[in-house]
Amino acid sequence: MIRVGISGATGLVGESLIRALSGHPRAHLTRLASAHAAGREITEILPALAKELSHRTVPPEPAEFVGETDVVFMATKGPEAIPLTRELLAAGVKCIDIGASFRFADAAVHDAWYQPAHEAPELLAKAVYGLPELWRNEIRAAGLVGNPGCYSTGAILALAPLLAEKLVRIEGLIVDAHSGLSGAGRRYSERTRNLFLDCNENARAYAVGSHRHTPEIEGQLSRLAGSGVRVTFVPHLAPLDRGILTTVYAAPARELTTELCQEVAWEFYRSHPFVRVRSDVELVELANVRGTNYCDWGVRVVPGGGDDARVVVVSAIDNTVKGAAGQAVQNMNLMFSFDETAGLVRRSL
Amino acid sequence: MIRVGISGATGLVGESLIRALSGHPRAHLTRLASAHAAGREITEILPALAKELSHRTVPPEPAEFVGETDVVFMATKGPEAIPLTRELLAAGVKCIDIGASFRFADAAVHDAWYQPAHEAPELLAKAVYGLPELWRNEIRAAGLVGNPGCYSTGAILALAPLLAEKLVRIEGLIVDAHSGLSGAGRRYSERTRNLFLDCNENARAYAVGSHRHTPEIEGQLSRLAGSGVRVTFVPHLAPLDRGILTTVYAAPARELTTELCQEVAWEFYRSHPFVRVRSDVELVELANVRGTNYCDWGVRVVPGGGDDARVVVVSAIDNTVKGAAGQAVQNMNLMFSFDETAGLVRRSL
Amino acid sequence: MIRVGISGATGLVGESLIRALSGHPRAHLTRLASAHAAGREITEILPALAKELSHRTVPPEPAEFVGETDVVFMATKGPEAIPLTRELLAAGVKCIDIGASFRFADAAVHDAWYQPAHEAPELLAKAVYGLPELWRNEIRAAGLVGNPGCYSTGAILALAPLLAEKLVRIEGLIVDAHSGLSGAGRRYSERTRNLFLDCNENARAYAVGSHRHTPEIEGQLSRLAGSGVRVTFVPHLAPLDRGILTTVYAAPARELTTELCQEVAWEFYRSHPFVRVRSDVELVELANVRGTNYCDWGVRVVPGGGDDARVVVVSAIDNTVKGAAGQAVQNMNLMFSFDETAGLVRRSL
Amino acid sequence: MIRVGISGATGLVGESLIRALSGHPRAHLTRLASAHAAGREITEILPALAKELSHRTVPPEPAEFVGETDVVFMATKGPEAIPLTRELLAAGVKCIDIGASFRFADAAVHDAWYQPAHEAPELLAKAVYGLPELWRNEIRAAGLVGNPGCYSTGAILALAPLLAEKLVRIEGLIVDAHSGLSGAGRRYSERTRNLFLDCNENARAYAVGSHRHTPEIEGQLSRLAGSGVRVTFVPHLAPLDRGILTTVYAAPARELTTELCQEVAWEFYRSHPFVRVRSDVELVELANVRGTNYCDWGVRVVPGGGDDARVVVVSAIDNTVKGAAGQAVQNMNLMFSFDETAGLVRRSL
Repeated sequence: MIRVGISGATGLVGESLIRALSGHPRAHLTRLASAHAAGREITEILPALAKELSHRTVPPEPAEFVGETDVVFMATKGPEAIPLTRELLAAGVKCIDIGASFRFADAAVHDAWYQPAHEAPELLAKAVYGLPELWRNEIRAAGLVGNPGCYSTGAILALAPLLAEKLVRIEGLIVDAHSGLSGAGRRYSERTRNLFLDCNENARAYAVGSHRHTPEIEGQLSRLAGSGVRVTFVPHLAPLDRGILTTVYAAPARELTTELCQEVAWEFYRSHPFVRVRSDVELVELANVRGTNYCDWGVRVVPGGGDDARVVVVSAIDNTVKGAAGQAVQNMNLMFSFDETAGLVRRSL
Repeated sequence: MIRVGISGATGLVGESLIRALSGHPRAHLTRLASAHAAGREITEILPALAKELSHRTVPPEPAEFVGETDVVFMATKGPEAIPLTRELLAAGVKCIDIGASFRFADAAVHDAWYQPAHEAPELLAKAVYGLPELWRNEIRAAGLVGNPGCYSTGAILALAPLLAEKLVRIEGLIVDAHSGLSGAGRRYSERTRNLFLDCNENARAYAVGSHRHTPEIEGQLSRLAGSGVRVTFVPHLAPLDRGILTTVYAAPARELTTELCQEVAWEFYRSHPFVRVRSDVELVELANVRGTNYCDWGVRVVPGGGDDARVVVVSAIDNTVKGAAGQAVQNMNLMFSFDETAGLVRRSL
Repeated sequence: MIRVGISGATGLVGESLIRALSGHPRAHLTRLASAHAAGREITEILPALAKELSHRTVPPEPAEFVGETDVVFMATKGPEAIPLTRELLAAGVKCIDIGASFRFADAAVHDAWYQPAHEAPELLAKAVYGLPELWRNEIRAAGLVGNPGCYSTGAILALAPLLAEKLVRIEGLIVDAHSGLSGAGRRYSERTRNLFLDCNENARAYAVGSHRHTPEIEGQLSRLAGSGVRVTFVPHLAPLDRGILTTVYAAPARELTTELCQEVAWEFYRSHPFVRVRSDVELVELANVRGTNYCDWGVRVVPGGGDDARVVVVSAIDNTVKGAAGQAVQNMNLMFSFDETAGLVRRSL
Repeated sequence: MIRVGISGATGLVGESLIRALSGHPRAHLTRLASAHAAGREITEILPALAKELSHRTVPPEPAEFVGETDVVFMATKGPEAIPLTRELLAAGVKCIDIGASFRFADAAVHDAWYQPAHEAPELLAKAVYGLPELWRNEIRAAGLVGNPGCYSTGAILALAPLLAEKLVRIEGLIVDAHSGLSGAGRRYSERTRNLFLDCNENARAYAVGSHRHTPEIEGQLSRLAGSGVRVTFVPHLAPLDRGILTTVYAAPARELTTELCQEVAWEFYRSHPFVRVRSDVELVELANVRGTNYCDWGVRVVPGGGDDARVVVVSAIDNTVKGAAGQAVQNMNLMFSFDETAGLVRRSL
């Protein structure tokens, strides 16, 4: 059994981590930290967990974690994870950051999209991008993992097999995604407008062409394709709790059939327990992945005259699980040589 | 005052027609026909309208309409509208078909997408495609109007200004649309799976690359562009009642700015009361058009290296109103030289 | 045409007032006031109304309204309406307050439930409780109307016929109500927890036995019954935008049948255009009143041994319309001798 | 490890059973039966379970279960479970029926509410009512368990402590419940009207005073109270997937405080792992029990003059879990002397 800590335990991602880890066969939670609620019993803040665990939260200080944890999840959004990560790594504690601080190898890319400038750029070389379907071996050896963004997970998994096998052109890629509200977290956001009245019976695009997951998607796809990939990425808000449905449009690089694309994906993901290649693109739906760590994947080649044929891929994930906490636990499993699915096959009754 | 009949009065579109027409200053409803409910009081079937009108339904027979109506709306989905339309036109009654029977000038196109083969192809030459923002003058002179499909309305209005002004390339057009469930009508459909449990907290793509509104969109856009336009069209189901949010991706035909595209749209739609060009693409949302005949329109040019720049247009309509009944009334207003907005400026309290 | 002002024009109730009044045949809006947004174009704040009206908002100062309005709606929640009302009344402008400041004849009752203590108790004697189905004649003569609370409207209309006719006992009355989120207004409320994630796929009771509409319900029912009525009132939040479904449980005062109760209600409400007595309690549903000023009403007597028979009444209203703005316009219509339904028969397309 | 079969494996309850049992430490699924889908791979019908199990379904014939199962769950609604149960019991296989066939000790009560008349009344004496919080010891010894109805579970657990301790009067009990749509199952029901468009943004009462869970609630409460209890029970449909929120109103039998009621409940449920007595009635909400086997419970005494004081209890369950499949597994755990919570502490990630 390893000892696990969480910084940011009372947020939506923190709660999902607790759910996965409190039933984990090889890990037990030793430190739940919260800047806002330190000293309080966790089930006061997360009443859905009553009778399932009892744990007094601590402040997110290095001293709370060092000596008490083998790995710490940073389930906070901002740069506050950086100094904590630095101290924990120095003390030999492995770290998985679910924010955006360790997703980029190049500090300049980080600084172009996030403020303030990265305060520990020397750590970036050590960090591994935590998408197990692409970097499983690197994650196994990592001491520091930058967990992918939720949209990035859906978009990269959608396109990876096709780009890796050079079935589609790298120009003109379109990523259209619709997300539930859990992506906006548990607090009111005037920018997101996440009130019930703002979201119910509504839908809209936001951050059109400017969302901060764009460089992450482009960076990872460029590594896969071996050259610079650009995407037009448009996220939308949909009136539901959980889930991101991503529809990707790509131009074929050569004559393609739906079957060929599907077989390539099947092969690409065959050793990966959490990607389900569906036999038809219309079988991909959010309901089937809700509350799970799965990414469902489907494809159809839409013929057209000459330039107009398009490969349409649809992927579905639960943004809170495969898009955040579940994937982070999947990374932990790899880092400690556990079964990749440990703690993650449980699902809603 | 003109006399108006509706065939298919008890469906979702029929009900919306009744709402618009029962408050119309220049029209009064004289015949409400229903094949299933003939002889019953309309408010028994549509209880939301209780105390607002009282009307015994009739069977959808020509004899019910001839001599009693100046115009008849066909609010039925299938080909049953065709023989009725033929008889009514022969008797001098104008017809507005909200199904798909009179949307195509070429019977071969109809027959390639709809079964059975069109039984009155001779009428197609007389029919006008009822999108007032494109064919207002033709509609004014028409005796027979084919009302556009709901997705078609959202897609064509999104792209029309850019294609008409040749700002975007005709190759590689992507139309991604998310629709509420009212598009599926009021009955259970095993194919659509429109139960609450199938749709709530869910989203999925369907009819990927094969939806029957595709030839309609392509045909109209081709007329606008002056050459053959193909689109990749992917509709999705979203967990809401009403509304279609359409996100369109097009490659610029030359150096473009967001401002230029917006000005072109502003100019294109300036005389059209039901299109609202928003000052920013992120101000387009379904909540603002719900229960109205508006189409809200916004654009952003997303820069990219070389081939990767994209013009992103988002349009929002209420599929039941601007996508069906409201647009049909707008067409009626033009056919009878009424104010184009008559009966349509009313909205939910 | 009368001239109408609104204080609090940019809130949810303000917007609903604008919708009703901008189409009103006898009234026109001359002053839209907002403390937060004074000086701005109203459609910047309420983008759904774009192209429907253009109006620069003013501050909610008496000087803005006096001489420019014949009646002013106070669509604000707190006591700030009181001094404005005092000045307007003094200047001969009629006032309709949609807050709670003028719902009680007795300042002591107000002060027991609302802070701070009422600062103009002398006005209370002049105010009429604005439930037209009970006090139509009084409202016709009123210069100041206190518009009922949303829950109060649903509960009082449910019970009024039965209590007025002494069909049910005044003891042991239960009022169980489920409301959509529009009752919580347009801003984030930490107390209500009106985020999408807090409300979607959720339901809960709140203010159990302590909601501030309780004294209003009890006061009005006591006037009807001619003796002191107490109710146990439990409101709940339901995951929808608009609507209050109220289920009332009462013990019969004598042998009763469903038919008798229904006939009594039919008679009680026969002259009232906005109450629809349904032929069966199970025909009462929120969907039928959404966006309208109707209250749908149904009853069933559930037999039982001796003490256990219960009369179950279900009422349905749209809390924003019949529970607020629509009823306020209904009151205005009465105060100015217009048709009671003027401006209120419009409905969503 | 025991061997478990399910008849009706492809329905909503069947799927929930599979989820609970496929992760159960002491049970494994050996037979999944479906009358409609016999011979098909289960994940074709339940695609959400892909990659989690692989199992070819069988017809619901006794021969499929005898010798291959130690216990069989009947997850079907109608009387078809009765002959199967008879044969399985005769062969020594334990049975848990999630339908209504074995919930009543008295065949006459069954026959008064369900058609056709019970065809195996001799089995009723052997059946135990499967509410573990009331009949744990009896269930441990049972070979046949009749699993409670979903509404019955919420209502009985709400009232049990108060009636057992005679804190409330047995007259005038009101049970007001709001349920999500999963209670209506996975198929279209014209009676329930479970289309998305019928339910979304809607709520209504149904089966007012006539729901078939009424005799079950009354029977169980009468056993607890030691005398004949009647309830007025009104179920409602709420626009959500899962959950029943039950609000119960009872007259105090003597002077009561909220604290006393809460302590009594705490004591009553202290040994029961799946009832959580909340410290305040307003902390009971559906979101906290979704996907779990918990029943959350809260109380408030609302004072009133004389006859008007009321004890208000709110309970929340997930109808598919504690109201059906989860409770059935809880019963199985007791019948086989497993930990009562085995297989049931897993929850959505």
